[in-house]
Parts: sequence; structure tokens; C-alpha cells
Amino acid sequence: MNSLKHFKICAFALLLTLLSNTVHAQISNDISHEEALKVLLTAKKEAEKLGVLENIAVIDACANLKAFIRMDGSFLGSIDIAIKKAKTARYFNMATGDLGKISQPGGIVYNIELSNGGLITFPGGVPIKDENGTIIGAIGVSGGTIEEDHDIATVGANAILQ
Amino acid sequence: MNSLKHFKICAFALLLTLLSNTVHAQISNDISHEEALKVLLTAKKEAEKLGVLENIAVIDACANLKAFIRMDGSFLGSIDIAIKKAKTARYFNMATGDLGKISQPGGIVYNIELSNGGLITFPGGVPIKDENGTIIGAIGVSGGTIEEDHDIATVGANAILQ
Amino acid sequence: MNSLKHFKICAFALLLTLLSNTVHAQISNDISHEEALKVLLTAKKEAEKLGVLENIAVIDACANLKAFIRMDGSFLGSIDIAIKKAKTARYFNMATGDLGKISQPGGIVYNIELSNGGLITFPGGVPIKDENGTIIGAIGVSGGTIEEDHDIATVGANAILQ
Amino acid sequence: MNSLKHFKICAFALLLTLLSNTVHAQISNDISHEEALKVLLTAKKEAEKLGVLENIAVIDACANLKAFIRMDGSFLGSIDIAIKKAKTARYFNMATGDLGKISQPGGIVYNIELSNGGLITFPGGVPIKDENGTIIGAIGVSGGTIEEDHDIATVGANAILQ
Repeated sequence: MNSLKHFKICAFALLLTLLSNTVHAQISNDISHEEALKVLLTAKKEAEKLGVLENIAVIDACANLKAFIRMDGSFLGSIDIAIKKAKTARYFNMATGDLGKISQPGGIVYNIELSNGGLITFPGGVPIKDENGTIIGAIGVSGGTIEEDHDIATVGANAILQ
Repeated sequence: MNSLKHFKICAFALLLTLLSNTVHAQISNDISHEEALKVLLTAKKEAEKLGVLENIAVIDACANLKAFIRMDGSFLGSIDIAIKKAKTARYFNMATGDLGKISQPGGIVYNIELSNGGLITFPGGVPIKDENGTIIGAIGVSGGTIEEDHDIATVGANAILQ
Repeated sequence: MNSLKHFKICAFALLLTLLSNTVHAQISNDISHEEALKVLLTAKKEAEKLGVLENIAVIDACANLKAFIRMDGSFLGSIDIAIKKAKTARYFNMATGDLGKISQPGGIVYNIELSNGGLITFPGGVPIKDENGTIIGAIGVSGGTIEEDHDIATVGANAILQ
Repeated sequence: MNSLKHFKICAFALLLTLLSNTVHAQISNDISHEEALKVLLTAKKEAEKLGVLENIAVIDACANLKAFIRMDGSFLGSIDIAIKKAKTARYFNMATGDLGKISQPGGIVYNIELSNGGLITFPGGVPIKDENGTIIGAIGVSGGTIEEDHDIATVGANAILQ
């Protein structure tokens, strides 16, 4: 047991050292967590104003989940859809509804939804751009009609510029 | 084309009806999104105070993601771990570290981590209880040492009582 | 059919416009594809020098696959392991073998391998740092002994500095 | 502890033996890694000439990943699509676009995209043939228009004959 304890202390010290280095790993041109919170809460406020129950996901430039909120009573199935909408918007740097227009039967990227572990190509996912037009993340909204989802996502994404 | 249009209108009306009913779908004894935000932001504030870069996930009584934030520069691998810690804590109504004590080789629930799409049984996941002691959700924290993760999760969970 | 053709042309023009915008989406502090190729080919050359049959994966700062090569006759099972080693090294900003030391039974992050769709925590994955020590990606090598894999990964990662 | 050490030495010796045998495991009529690199870099050069940001994947006769490169700033979602295009082309020994023509609603292999963990049946995947017309692998290209992807894939595949 003593060697195990010693091992744990060593491992702990190792981890601390490693942790102190992670600060340097943050990439630039990426949404910060404070910006992501602002986008999230702006979208939530808009949803409340319109009386729509939404799931809202914000991802970073790497398409990793950065912030999320699920409003009480919203569709259970919309958690995954909100996240997939955000990822889809970043994966192809366009609003999900625009991709959906070209993924229909006969479209140039028919069934693209089956890639990347499942994409969502109806409206509600929107890239987030900074003041230079650089894409720094994306927002995905699911729970209302596709028009409501898209509008609320857009209001959220634009919060970054204010 | 007319029947498609008709179908769309019907589907839209159905969706509206469903939406108006979803408010009643909220189960009692469940964390609200405002409470989840409070838990999340309290944990984030504690992480900032301690200078630890964390991923923080809050899930509801059904173990569905309710709120999430990922601090800038934290481990990429901790997004999934924070969510899995929260789920694990709610799946078995105990702190993840307590489950980890009995999942070791020779333990009574050896390799339980392989169930449910992957559990995390080291510290950092804590059930969230209301003032009656009823479990209404859980919080999972990942990015620091396991002691830091557990402490920050506990501070977050306790925010519900204030 | 005419409207479909019209639709395709519109979609095509839309895609072209979108494509012209993607150049701005590249994040800084990230490995370039020329650097990734250099890392890959340096590691391959080292493997050939040592007479080891390797799978070599290079990922970027986002942990996305950037470059890969599989040497003739190497283990089929090592394709996935090489990629997972590289991802693991970036997910936690450390050599995979260092994470493996603390994921053993009784270790502080026991069974962490079950997160993130499967991690590999034995040696062969190494972060790639630029001249400032910033982590810009990672390399994963699989096919030889764990010592060979780690050494070849290290030689590859260091190619970025030359 | 001694038996563990003994076991490790045995395992090491076994591994060495296996390694020395793997050279003979290469099947004939299979693309070599040098050929795969040639295909990859020829396709990349063509993409650069046309000013298109591509993800390029080369797989072997067994449909396993052999070589890959992801150009800076290309779509994040195209990593998986490039690999899936290459696999689809080898799974059915035809250009992906040809399969897509018969997978549309009403087509003879409608929704075949749902098999094999997800196929991509729009253009950009092309079989690689040797000078005898034997299929020895496939290439998948994603990031440009479907015409660009297909043309670049074809240029890459033809590099094997020069």
C-alpha cells in the first residue's frame, strides 16, 4: 500500500506540473468562454421573449462543446440536435439550413447527414463570426419551429459583435 | 406539390400543439434551468478563485444534459469526462469517487465503467440535492486534480441550497 | 427536371462562395499541413532506419486528423491505435505513457480510457510543440514495441523545431 | 512480481517474432505505402494548382486507411467524408458518384449509405487501379465542389500509372 501511496503522490505532482502548462494550449481566433456564455444567454433571453422552449449549444472553432443550456420542458430529443446543429454549422462554415438545401434527394451532397457521426441539416445552426468575419465557433438551437430556431440562433451569434 | 404543402401545414400545427404541451412535461423534483445555471456559474467562480481550468456539466434528474461550460485552455479530453462524471453520479446516486472505490479489480462492481456507454468513476461527479435531500440532478467537473474537481463540484452542488 | 437543374446551379454557386470564405477559418497556433507532413515523414524515416513497421498519425491543435501513413505489413489493428494515441496526447497535453501511469487499477484516473470514444494510454503518443513550447498538435505511433513507438513519435515531434 | 516480469519478457519476445513475420502479411495486388504517398501528394499538388482546400484519403485493397492529408483551412467535416468516399469506392469498386446515381429514392440500392457505418455516395471517391486494371485501393477527396473533388481524386488515382 505504501508504494501505491507514493505512486499517487508522484502522479499528483506530475499532473499539477502538466496543468500549469495547459494555459499555453489555448488557440487564438477561438471563441472565449465568456463570449460563449454571452451568446448562450442572449439566445436564451430571445427564446424567453418569444415563448419558445429551446436547447442551445455553443461550440468553439474546433467544434468542441463550449456552453450549453436546456430550457425546462423543452424536447428531450433536442439536446443532441442542438449540439449536432452547432457542429454541422462549423464543420461546413454555413447555416445548417443552407446545407440542407443541397443534401436533399437529387442534391449534390445527398445523405451527407450520415457522415461525422450524424449531421443535422435543417435550420437552427449558425456560424459565429468575430468583427473581422472570422469564424470562431457556432451556435445550434433546437426545440421550436425551424424558423424560430434559426432566428434565435442568429440573435445569439450576433451577440458577439455587441 | 399541393399535398406536400398541406402536409407541411398539418405538421406545423401538430408541432405547435406539441410545443404548448411540453410545459407540462417537466417532472417534479427536477432541477430547473435557472438552478442549473446557478450551480454552473458557482462552480465556475470557484474554479476561477482556485485558478483551475475546468469543464463543468450539470444534468437533470433524468440524467440529460442541462447546462455546460468549458473554460478556455482546459483539457480537450475533459468535455466528455465532465459529462460522464455527472451522468455516473446520477445513474447511481453517489459521488463518482465512491463508486470508483468498488469498481477496482476485485471490487464488487469491477469494470462497471463499461456500462452505459462509458462511466467515469474517479472523483469529480456529485449528485445535486434539494433542501429535502431529494436528488434533482448532478454535476460533473473535469480538468484539475481529482481533489479539485470533487471540491468544485461540491461547491457547485451546494449552491442549490442558498 | 429543369427546376432541379436550376437548383443545382444555384447550390453550386452558393458552395463556391462559401468555399472562398473558408480560408479565414484557419486558426493560429495550429500545425500547418506542411509541418504535419514533415513530422510524418521524419517519423517514417526513423521507423525505416530502425526496421520497425509503424502506423503514424499526426493531428492538429483541435485533435483532428491532419496527416497519416501506414507502412506496408504493419499491424492492421494499429491504424486506430495510432490515431487514438495522437488524440489522447492532445486531449490531456501529455505523452500517452504518462497518462497510462495514473490510469492503472488504484490510479487516480483509473479507466479514463473509456472516455472520449476510447483512449490509448500506453506509450507512443506525444504532443507536438512549437519553438515557444505551445502545443500545436500531436503524433501517435503504433506497430512496434512501446519503446520504439514512443521514440519514433518523439523524433517526429521534434522535427517541427528543425 | 517475478512471474509478471517473466510474462513481460515472453510477451516481448512474442511481439518481436510477430513483427518479423508481418512483412510477409502484405497481400499482393495491394497499394504500397510509397505508392499511396505518391497518389496523396499528386492529388494535393493538383488541389493547390486549382486553389481548392481539400482533405485527401488513400486506402488500401482491404479498405484500411493508408495515407491521409488535410489541407489548412479546409472544412472540418471533410475529414470523415474523404475517408468515407475512399472506403465507399473500394467497397463497391466504382466511383462514389456512380453509386449515388442508384441510391436515390426509387433507386435500386436506395439508402445504401446507411450500411457499413455510413457511406458517402456523391462524387469524390475513385478506385485506384494498377497497370493491369486490378483495383489495389481507392482515393477519397472532400472540400471542394463535387466536380473538383472527383477530378482531383482521378488525377491522384492515375499517378499510380506514371
